[in-house]
Amino acid sequence: MIILGIDPGSRVTGYGVVEVENGKEHPIEFGVLRMEEEDDHHLRLRRIHERLLAVIDRCIPDLCAIEMPVYGRNAQSMLKLGRAQAAAMLAALVRDVPVVEYTPAEVKKSVTGNGAASKEQVGYMVRAILEIETTDDPMALDASDALAVSLCHAHRMKSGEKAGRAGGWAQFVRDNPNRVR
Amino acid sequence: MIILGIDPGSRVTGYGVVEVENGKEHPIEFGVLRMEEEDDHHLRLRRIHERLLAVIDRCIPDLCAIEMPVYGRNAQSMLKLGRAQAAAMLAALVRDVPVVEYTPAEVKKSVTGNGAASKEQVGYMVRAILEIETTDDPMALDASDALAVSLCHAHRMKSGEKAGRAGGWAQFVRDNPNRVR
Repeated sequence: MIILGIDPGSRVTGYGVVEVENGKEHPIEFGVLRMEEEDDHHLRLRRIHERLLAVIDRCIPDLCAIEMPVYGRNAQSMLKLGRAQAAAMLAALVRDVPVVEYTPAEVKKSVTGNGAASKEQVGYMVRAILEIETTDDPMALDASDALAVSLCHAHRMKSGEKAGRAGGWAQFVRDNPNRVR
Repeated sequence: MIILGIDPGSRVTGYGVVEVENGKEHPIEFGVLRMEEEDDHHLRLRRIHERLLAVIDRCIPDLCAIEMPVYGRNAQSMLKLGRAQAAAMLAALVRDVPVVEYTPAEVKKSVTGNGAASKEQVGYMVRAILEIETTDDPMALDASDALAVSLCHAHRMKSGEKAGRAGGWAQFVRDNPNRVR
């Protein structure tokens, strides 16, 4: 099974493709789409979408796991984040790749055992599990958040836990009345 | 010039295609994508995207004008609205159709002269300008918001006013510090 993990943002979007074979996870491809130098918001959305389409066409994932935030700073930043998420998700959806969503806490808990783990702790565990050479390159840290989303889904499948939320968001909102504002 | 106006929402997305010829606007096609019966949020995004791709391939618009809200009810609803907007915008962007954005007040002001006009007043003016038969069909009212976005862009072009915001959102946020929260 090949899982594409995505950690989307309007300026930086990480992705990480992981293959699960005989219960062991291997990294296939990972990277970061940086669009900080690109001032055009629409062009950024198009780039996220098209670059992820290329990743999908190269790696043919069976599933796309995406990180969804529960809280946001403000309405405008959530609107922009929603746009970036959709640009990423649509790359999977138009290729008939199902999408599931995990909260940051679920991803951290699955990879480190602690839902409040730091970015560095997540990065350390991701590199240990996937046997990626330790590096101080900040790009590897950004991509490791996306790899962590892939690993989160892989671990859930292995342990027989419930997979992340599919498109039925309404259920999530009903399940988490106090976490949604 | 052919303009595709879109009024996106995660449950109801209106679209309206208007042709401007010798300074006069004619309706080409308009409609409403209703997804209230569809419980799957991801499937909704895909449908918005694919149905608008079909509209674009039929009508070959020169430009896509989209309504962008400035305020939102809460972070989660803004996230979902952002996703619906991106699903719509990406249909234009992947077909190389440029996208510009107008606030609801700009659209209302352009079509009725009053930035705080009611939905009914906007619908009345849209039908009058485009010579669409008056109808009480609520679907026509939903589509008329999208047609109003097209007309807003057409009027701005005619009067030589500045077009809507392109992808350079950062500028909009700088221009409207008190309107963005």
